[in-house]
Amino acid sequence: MIIVMSPSATKENLEKVIKKVESAGLRTHISEGEEVTIVGVIGDQKKIANLEMNMMEGVEKTVRITEKYKLVSRNFHPEDTIVDVDGVKVGGKQIVVMAGPCSVESIEQLREAAKAVKAGGAQFLRGGAFKPRTSPYDFQGLAEEGLKMLRQVADEEGLKVVTEIVDKDDLELVGKYADLYQVGARNMQNFQLLKALGKANKPVMLKRGLSATISEWLNAAEYIMAGGNEQVILCERGIRTYETFTRNTLDLSAVAAVKELSHLPIIVDPSHGTGRWQMVQPMARAAVAAGCDGLIIEVHPHPEVALSDGDQSLTPKNFNRLMEDLGKIAAVMERTV
Amino acid sequence: MIIVMSPSATKENLEKVIKKVESAGLRTHISEGEEVTIVGVIGDQKKIANLEMNMMEGVEKTVRITEKYKLVSRNFHPEDTIVDVDGVKVGGKQIVVMAGPCSVESIEQLREAAKAVKAGGAQFLRGGAFKPRTSPYDFQGLAEEGLKMLRQVADEEGLKVVTEIVDKDDLELVGKYADLYQVGARNMQNFQLLKALGKANKPVMLKRGLSATISEWLNAAEYIMAGGNEQVILCERGIRTYETFTRNTLDLSAVAAVKELSHLPIIVDPSHGTGRWQMVQPMARAAVAAGCDGLIIEVHPHPEVALSDGDQSLTPKNFNRLMEDLGKIAAVMERTV
Amino acid sequence: MIIVMSPSATKENLEKVIKKVESAGLRTHISEGEEVTIVGVIGDQKKIANLEMNMMEGVEKTVRITEKYKLVSRNFHPEDTIVDVDGVKVGGKQIVVMAGPCSVESIEQLREAAKAVKAGGAQFLRGGAFKPRTSPYDFQGLAEEGLKMLRQVADEEGLKVVTEIVDKDDLELVGKYADLYQVGARNMQNFQLLKALGKANKPVMLKRGLSATISEWLNAAEYIMAGGNEQVILCERGIRTYETFTRNTLDLSAVAAVKELSHLPIIVDPSHGTGRWQMVQPMARAAVAAGCDGLIIEVHPHPEVALSDGDQSLTPKNFNRLMEDLGKIAAVMERTV
Amino acid sequence: MIIVMSPSATKENLEKVIKKVESAGLRTHISEGEEVTIVGVIGDQKKIANLEMNMMEGVEKTVRITEKYKLVSRNFHPEDTIVDVDGVKVGGKQIVVMAGPCSVESIEQLREAAKAVKAGGAQFLRGGAFKPRTSPYDFQGLAEEGLKMLRQVADEEGLKVVTEIVDKDDLELVGKYADLYQVGARNMQNFQLLKALGKANKPVMLKRGLSATISEWLNAAEYIMAGGNEQVILCERGIRTYETFTRNTLDLSAVAAVKELSHLPIIVDPSHGTGRWQMVQPMARAAVAAGCDGLIIEVHPHPEVALSDGDQSLTPKNFNRLMEDLGKIAAVMERTV
Repeated sequence: MIIVMSPSATKENLEKVIKKVESAGLRTHISEGEEVTIVGVIGDQKKIANLEMNMMEGVEKTVRITEKYKLVSRNFHPEDTIVDVDGVKVGGKQIVVMAGPCSVESIEQLREAAKAVKAGGAQFLRGGAFKPRTSPYDFQGLAEEGLKMLRQVADEEGLKVVTEIVDKDDLELVGKYADLYQVGARNMQNFQLLKALGKANKPVMLKRGLSATISEWLNAAEYIMAGGNEQVILCERGIRTYETFTRNTLDLSAVAAVKELSHLPIIVDPSHGTGRWQMVQPMARAAVAAGCDGLIIEVHPHPEVALSDGDQSLTPKNFNRLMEDLGKIAAVMERTV
Repeated sequence: MIIVMSPSATKENLEKVIKKVESAGLRTHISEGEEVTIVGVIGDQKKIANLEMNMMEGVEKTVRITEKYKLVSRNFHPEDTIVDVDGVKVGGKQIVVMAGPCSVESIEQLREAAKAVKAGGAQFLRGGAFKPRTSPYDFQGLAEEGLKMLRQVADEEGLKVVTEIVDKDDLELVGKYADLYQVGARNMQNFQLLKALGKANKPVMLKRGLSATISEWLNAAEYIMAGGNEQVILCERGIRTYETFTRNTLDLSAVAAVKELSHLPIIVDPSHGTGRWQMVQPMARAAVAAGCDGLIIEVHPHPEVALSDGDQSLTPKNFNRLMEDLGKIAAVMERTV
Repeated sequence: MIIVMSPSATKENLEKVIKKVESAGLRTHISEGEEVTIVGVIGDQKKIANLEMNMMEGVEKTVRITEKYKLVSRNFHPEDTIVDVDGVKVGGKQIVVMAGPCSVESIEQLREAAKAVKAGGAQFLRGGAFKPRTSPYDFQGLAEEGLKMLRQVADEEGLKVVTEIVDKDDLELVGKYADLYQVGARNMQNFQLLKALGKANKPVMLKRGLSATISEWLNAAEYIMAGGNEQVILCERGIRTYETFTRNTLDLSAVAAVKELSHLPIIVDPSHGTGRWQMVQPMARAAVAAGCDGLIIEVHPHPEVALSDGDQSLTPKNFNRLMEDLGKIAAVMERTV
Repeated sequence: MIIVMSPSATKENLEKVIKKVESAGLRTHISEGEEVTIVGVIGDQKKIANLEMNMMEGVEKTVRITEKYKLVSRNFHPEDTIVDVDGVKVGGKQIVVMAGPCSVESIEQLREAAKAVKAGGAQFLRGGAFKPRTSPYDFQGLAEEGLKMLRQVADEEGLKVVTEIVDKDDLELVGKYADLYQVGARNMQNFQLLKALGKANKPVMLKRGLSATISEWLNAAEYIMAGGNEQVILCERGIRTYETFTRNTLDLSAVAAVKELSHLPIIVDPSHGTGRWQMVQPMARAAVAAGCDGLIIEVHPHPEVALSDGDQSLTPKNFNRLMEDLGKIAAVMERTV
């Protein structure tokens, strides 16, 4: 940490600052400039993390040098992590694809979707059984009934199941049917849920919050890893900006940023990220070219009758086309789909 | 709902749209313009809320006319709601003030803060016993020990207790000590928590999410009210923008907006909203002038040693000055502090 | 400036960094921590301002300590500046009010507006003769004809004229009729226009850009002052955020921030800042309570037929009510309207 | 346009609305719902564009159905436009690359950069001679001296010149040396400059504003086209969001959006879009995969001594690597580099 003194700080102010730092078991390094004096703080990072100096008289601002997350950091784990989801490797050479409807609606709908998903070459069936919806009057999902359908249909087609968990009390229930827990954007900082997942023995896919910084997102992953569960996959799904043409602004630079800062695999959701099915194909291609490890895509046999998110779902035919495209881009990246 | 057909839509596209609307038990009203045709959808609002038309061929966009929330809407309840928190009325003539430290740290700290808060004229003691923190390595609060201290000290000074709940499992625990549940910004769309609070028999203060629209915020309040708990207070605490000088951008226009759209009381948090103690006083004055029903303010006997949020906390002396100021502005608004 | 070396930086990297700093005529101060080494840069601020270090190998990031603006800074000019606009003092005890229609449409419309504005107690008549509009097909203003009307009507009522300049070629033309140049949000970083206004001998009101930080805004004011024109008034008019209920998000904390960072007067535009006439009155009151030096408000005799911005304009009757309110808040602030 | 009446609107309110629409030479179509009445407005789009209804009593809101831009719209010009820049086609099969330093600093620097740019396979040399800088004390560019160097060095290497114009008075001067005018983000809504460029006989590259919506950007392009200059290229360069890890948030979905809404070519600037040279390569690949028609990239022979934007510039060696990568992605897109 660096403490920047204000130009009007007195010698006494400076002395008090030094005293406070030292009384926290840390050392200081003073650098006197022509206009301002700067105090470097040296020592144990945990102690530094707890140091609050901004209120001291004469302090203009403080600058933190290091991020608080450790386990998710590439500095602490230079090689890429590969997360094994019941035999499917995420973060390795293969770019994994998770696809299916936004919500599980019926066994027929799901089966039709799963066949299309499998035929296109995806590894995972996705589908929401618990839906966090803005309004209490919107369709909230089929709950356990939906989970059962997911498992049954996925097994029929030889697919893995990824589905959202919204309540820590459902850890066992969802874990009974799913291969991969999904934490949605609205729950990215639901720390109780993250802590519970830190104790789970199945991998977790953590979506970026609606307006989460990359740092906050990695700190949220740190909650899961700090609990002992190191099988974490990150998922970029678009952030909230002033633009209204798209539902969110898909931030593909997050892929490159995460690859630089962390060893965890990252996948991209171009369906929620744009909210427009016409944009899913170009953005999925772009995500692979940016270096992502996988994609999660909404596919619905009949998007025009979907109970949620119809306008961002691909038809099976369009999904097939997309997968062909992705294969070619993946090859350039020396990867497979 | 209005369905706007694209200029290139065929007659057949239009017929299918009409058919889908009618098969949902709704009626249509067709308006043919020179460039585009528009389909008005008429009938039961719940059915309309579930209608998804964007994926139909020939549909350019749909426009929803009415908000989904009902119980929080001023249309459905024209008079201001006054929430009674164990005898203290929020939303009435008096502008209530909730004050205290960000975190409960020790009984001495809390008692000193509570005396200052009471002396200044506040009605509520605030203080976090459960702290949702970005990093798992930050101070997470004293939990029940902190709650006990809050209750004890508040009783000594004749103050009410408002404190954050972060887990639905703590409903009873927090309810045992607090007079008013606080839902923090990160949990505004933690729908499991909102549903649990909908069954609680104590009032709830719902903070606006970091990047929540006013509509999403009111829908979150609807979750609580739809569960049966109509004692909801809203709290504006700053939104996330590109500006970095302040911690958040305090959106005082939300006060006027909420007063127009809803009957619920709204209070303002200028401490988190700005993140700079120097700005708390002007922003608190402005909030009262904008028409808010209360304020929640961080006061710490020794902000320079606070375990969290020291730089946005007022000293007792500055809090006193603030309260004097607020009294004068309140008088102009024909209210009291 | 502080240079933070990355944990993996070599001794050689550090030596090159030091060499580059020294070869720019600056001195270094090295602080070796347990994890990272930090290089403080000491010397002439202008030289530091031109130093680019981020690309050097081994450099993790650089942190600038001081802002680049000087003339607008309160550090360099501790007392409040009062700008004299042909006898009307802006930044003094009186809170000035500028009011009138968005666009000048006709002499009748303007005269009716000016009478209302004068009757309400405002000092300035506002009105656009040159309108920067998003679409080339929107009404672009009456140009010199509009300026003449503004001057004539203002003189009839004893008001000053403030109006927007969009082109540096119009400096003389607009200056012939106006008492105060207005630079609109879209031109805040039109540096050619700012430089031209730096040579003008009339005061300038500089609106904040749609997504300008406070620092960028003050630097834009520095362009005008650096040219020799020290008569600058700042104007907060709302920033662009994700919220869509209001046209912009009026950032009243900018008032407190500007008062801390600069000596220049600041006024607030609640009409553009909210885009809804219902919100103008509460936000105007809040702005005065936050400590602003003036307000600029859209008033139109018949808002429902206005050629632009009808939905944010007050009727003369509502303007009168507003001015009464403002007088009371101003009195609390020990100021007058 | 659709006018939504409020639930409490009276019959008289409705009649006045209808009367106002009709008196503007337009027709209405009334759709009475159970809760609200909707008025469709039919007729000449220009008349509708000028209609302001929000202030009328009983009107809740209005919804515009069609965008105001025409010439840039794909509806009015379904085929892709190919802009010919002195023989180099932008928007055709070849993905064009513009590269060079942020600022022109000296003939040696520029020549070294140009050789690298040419060797890598780019078609254009970029470099700023007029720099719009946040602070008046930052390096402002070499002006005509810089333009001359650009032309000379580009001619030596057989490259085209693209450079920024910041002042309409420089139209002839910049046009004398450049093949393609660049309008920077800060000037996207400098309508005087856009109008002047509408009269120019050379093509224009229009960068997206820092917080411009796609609609505003296309309307800005309409200003140029409405003036008679149909040779317009769009350039996505990142938008301003709350994220601070990157300099801007590169919005690659804008590529897909522009391709849907407009026939104009679009190129991408991953250097300004991310502000970090490490991210330029993945984002450039992603941009091509998203469907862009070109890239503009900062290349500096010695980024560590650059006068501006050193941390986002590629070395010649990294630029070469990038170009190899792009060739492979382009091939998948059935294009060339």
